[in-house]
Amino acid sequence: MSYTTPLRDIRFAMKELAGLDEILKLPGFEEAEPDLVDAILDENARFVQEVVAPLNVTGDRQPPVWKDGVVTATPGFAQAFADYSAGGWQGLQHPAQWGGQGLPQLVAAPAAENIQAASLAFSLCPMLTDGVIEALLSVGSEAQRRAYVPNLIGGRWTGTMNLTEPQAGSDLALVKTRAVPQPDGSYRLSGQKIFITYGEHDLAENIIHLVLARLPDAPAGVKGISLFIVPKILVNEDGSLGKRNDVWCASLEHKLGIHGSPTAVLLYGAGKGEVGEGAIGYLVGEANRGLEYMFIMMNAARYSVGQQGIALAERAYQHAQAYARERVQGRAIEGSAGPVTISHHPDVQRMLLTMRALTEASRAVSYVAAAAHDKADHHPDAEVRSRNRAFYEYLVPIVKGFSTELAVEVASLGVQVHGGMGFIEETGAAQYYRDARILPIYEGTTAIQANDLVGRKTLRDGGAAAYASIAAMRDTLKALQVEASRADAESREGLCLLRDHFDQAIQAYQDAVDFILQHAADHVRAVFAGSVPYLMLAGVTHGGWQMVRAALVSRRRLAEGSDDSFYRNKLGTALFYGAHILPRALSLSAAVRAGQVADTAADWAGVA
Amino acid sequence: MSYTTPLRDIRFAMKELAGLDEILKLPGFEEAEPDLVDAILDENARFVQEVVAPLNVTGDRQPPVWKDGVVTATPGFAQAFADYSAGGWQGLQHPAQWGGQGLPQLVAAPAAENIQAASLAFSLCPMLTDGVIEALLSVGSEAQRRAYVPNLIGGRWTGTMNLTEPQAGSDLALVKTRAVPQPDGSYRLSGQKIFITYGEHDLAENIIHLVLARLPDAPAGVKGISLFIVPKILVNEDGSLGKRNDVWCASLEHKLGIHGSPTAVLLYGAGKGEVGEGAIGYLVGEANRGLEYMFIMMNAARYSVGQQGIALAERAYQHAQAYARERVQGRAIEGSAGPVTISHHPDVQRMLLTMRALTEASRAVSYVAAAAHDKADHHPDAEVRSRNRAFYEYLVPIVKGFSTELAVEVASLGVQVHGGMGFIEETGAAQYYRDARILPIYEGTTAIQANDLVGRKTLRDGGAAAYASIAAMRDTLKALQVEASRADAESREGLCLLRDHFDQAIQAYQDAVDFILQHAADHVRAVFAGSVPYLMLAGVTHGGWQMVRAALVSRRRLAEGSDDSFYRNKLGTALFYGAHILPRALSLSAAVRAGQVADTAADWAGVA
Repeated sequence: MSYTTPLRDIRFAMKELAGLDEILKLPGFEEAEPDLVDAILDENARFVQEVVAPLNVTGDRQPPVWKDGVVTATPGFAQAFADYSAGGWQGLQHPAQWGGQGLPQLVAAPAAENIQAASLAFSLCPMLTDGVIEALLSVGSEAQRRAYVPNLIGGRWTGTMNLTEPQAGSDLALVKTRAVPQPDGSYRLSGQKIFITYGEHDLAENIIHLVLARLPDAPAGVKGISLFIVPKILVNEDGSLGKRNDVWCASLEHKLGIHGSPTAVLLYGAGKGEVGEGAIGYLVGEANRGLEYMFIMMNAARYSVGQQGIALAERAYQHAQAYARERVQGRAIEGSAGPVTISHHPDVQRMLLTMRALTEASRAVSYVAAAAHDKADHHPDAEVRSRNRAFYEYLVPIVKGFSTELAVEVASLGVQVHGGMGFIEETGAAQYYRDARILPIYEGTTAIQANDLVGRKTLRDGGAAAYASIAAMRDTLKALQVEASRADAESREGLCLLRDHFDQAIQAYQDAVDFILQHAADHVRAVFAGSVPYLMLAGVTHGGWQMVRAALVSRRRLAEGSDDSFYRNKLGTALFYGAHILPRALSLSAAVRAGQVADTAADWAGVA
Repeated sequence: MSYTTPLRDIRFAMKELAGLDEILKLPGFEEAEPDLVDAILDENARFVQEVVAPLNVTGDRQPPVWKDGVVTATPGFAQAFADYSAGGWQGLQHPAQWGGQGLPQLVAAPAAENIQAASLAFSLCPMLTDGVIEALLSVGSEAQRRAYVPNLIGGRWTGTMNLTEPQAGSDLALVKTRAVPQPDGSYRLSGQKIFITYGEHDLAENIIHLVLARLPDAPAGVKGISLFIVPKILVNEDGSLGKRNDVWCASLEHKLGIHGSPTAVLLYGAGKGEVGEGAIGYLVGEANRGLEYMFIMMNAARYSVGQQGIALAERAYQHAQAYARERVQGRAIEGSAGPVTISHHPDVQRMLLTMRALTEASRAVSYVAAAAHDKADHHPDAEVRSRNRAFYEYLVPIVKGFSTELAVEVASLGVQVHGGMGFIEETGAAQYYRDARILPIYEGTTAIQANDLVGRKTLRDGGAAAYASIAAMRDTLKALQVEASRADAESREGLCLLRDHFDQAIQAYQDAVDFILQHAADHVRAVFAGSVPYLMLAGVTHGGWQMVRAALVSRRRLAEGSDDSFYRNKLGTALFYGAHILPRALSLSAAVRAGQVADTAADWAGVA
């Protein structure tokens, strides 16, 4: 199945919803002219369609092979990574002084999304490397940056994040890996890390592991974790590669999906390298602040994983839409001379539109978030920076949690559209269903995102960020009310329904925020019993907001006389979002507000 | 992962909700004493736990092997099927005169459900065989019954349904397989059938295929399809096995799940047997009435597949619950001295309770349906028979559609509860997620069920069956109102919320039925745009009804002084259903009633 980057929708969301023009005018982005951005998107589309997309099935069927600690990647992955590096894709959003191109996140995000859609398994290597670059630039010493960052941005080396241990997953307080200081200022690490994405492979000549470990005198819990650089191959003073370090890949996991991505068990200090016992590592930043530093990578990675959800959903949608337009089966419900393609049947349309509406809405939310991130970093006005920072921070768990949960739903619908053929592996729809399932889990499960959304992003500021969004949504609602009131007969019913359902969703969302703020002190379990429904409610409503904005822009363009069918299509997708997706806000809000009863129910049911 | 049959919940649903005592008193079931039923359930539990459950993982990892048309089943399956047959399980609900035990469906259903939970892939062989037995007893000639049924019930032979062809899936009008009459009254069949479950295997000495094909002079479309018996090995007059027929397994499919079940491509008339060219077959019933006959099998099979959803959900739930009680990770949100098991975290409880509430509610609905089936067949009063027939027919697409959609949801939550471990195949949770995905597809997709529910089950009787259920639900609501009004402080909030959400759900359901009846004539596409949401809405509300009934029974038992913790658990699960599941009715009903807009949206979006 070929893949076509949805450039038209990407450009629409970037320009009309996320305000690309405004972003490109921010200080620091002067060199990113609109024409350059367009050219980058075109070249990105060509690259992912020609080079990366064909590897998606290969990765699934010919996973990396482990032998004696050495991992050979899926055939074709090494060449594609070389092309990726040569194309400068790794450096898109990194600073020019380190070899990157210093582009806004609003430009880097769609480029990354397309690579993820082309091959999720392939895209994980660049994504993890991005995180390492980000962390070193933020908290690494000047010497560390010089030693590693240019090679990481240049694609000669790749990076990993080493958090998880068998007993320490979501709960990093339980990390046991030890780091013992050496007389020369380095450390020797020993311990076992699991679930290390691209922990071992042959795509690059070196791998830079960032590893959480404890110093001998460290306090217990998360306040005793430090962050270390552990290169697979030590780097000499002159930048040349030295001895093989004592980090060894003990095995690869046998996973449900993303087979093309090697998920490694790494042993530190097993005496398998050329340096004696203990992997040589270098402290990053200050001791015992490792978790805080790791969150620098995590936050970027969470946003990226949210985009993976959108990417996977887009690809599953394209696959299903193509099949539905080909497969002839059954007559039209309103009567037809002979059998029709299944894309004509109302329920197939419901499934396809659910897939598309969720995907487009989430894409818009994620680009709006990216623009907020760029403004938070680059806007000259401190108040604007701070407002956008709060907005971005509020959206990150939604982008991560909502987009990945919907990816599972969309991929599942994609199988369903194919009927019996969907269950046959060769059809390809099943791979998306398998691949998608990791997304709500890694880089923090949906529950972890929801805890973040409730705790740090809603309670901590007394609901300020949430209520600010709600106020902005009500402004958009007013514009929709005006538009609906002057619509002609053809459009009136749809716009009025969109208006009514958006209105109800905003209220449902506000009721949930109110509930959370009211009960956090007196009944904290009741609040967290509805944390994931709250996250999903926020996602549905923010997605609806962007779809309403998209509908208003489309109406304007059509009124201006545009004959671009994109606007009519977008209006249709937005109306469907209003008809079928926005009403989910009602049930989600009710579930949030049923928190006390849900907590009692859990107690009585005895699940603990 | 071991499996424990949920006998306590099964007995509760059979007795307290489906009225087992009343069923056992019906004419024809005199010999099924309550003690006998209890003994059967106990023996069934022992059999599935010891013999079948251990095969579930084996089937997934060592699928059947095809070589030159011969299929060797997963190691252990043949012995288990021999034990199954020896135990008399195949004959449970079939008539005593044919070697069965003539038990009510209300008893046969839980027994089948347990086998499905133990190994879905294994259970498909008996299920298909049941369908063939049912069809032959209903429309086969006396000679055909004598020739095949005792051996099918005895487990010496198995049966299959041959409907699908590459171009004919949901749309059987497109069937092309041909049957040419022979001078001796038999037929010669030629054509290709795909997706034939247990179409070839070595569990039994013969396989009896029921095949849809067209006579040379048959009218086009579904009215030209006839039903044929095609034995894999011809049966001599004296009952001994004769020549190998010309039906040949060309390959097995490579599937997402249910790996242990051989899904065959069967070639009829490829000249591969010992009878020359053309598979020898025998017409069942009258010519050109094949589709009608096949629906005899289909209806039973649809109910069974619905139960598979419940079975798989139960197993996924048990797996996740066990893991959640073992895995220590994170502190309690309300504060704890050290890390706790994840079963203590509110969101894990939400996931576990969602899994359990959906499973128990669907089980109750399916048993209530089984009891209606038994009354429809056996009650002495014609009016009661007819009322129960209508109720059962209304429930079948709900049992099939809702229970299987929820199985996908529950299996997905099961993976999520396991976190990163859930994505590792060895953990076992991923298998349920893969296996579950076929359930909303085979034996008629959810859309096909929804078409049935809207068309034949709601519109045809002017909503009579739906409104009858709604009236009965309102009676239960009244009883709940009384119970809530006299509840003590501990229970009042939960019961009042359950009452309010049940009330809203009934109204939402009724609004949807009203909408469907009002618009079927003037805007049929608008009605079918919401067919699946209507099915899910009916499922949520019927499930809620049974959970409310379960809560009322549990309250009564506790008030009577019972110290059985089951009742408190059940009350908790029912309250959770009220808090988190019943509100789904609001969004589903809104989607149904947005039919016109959804249809316009699909047109504008251009998905056709």
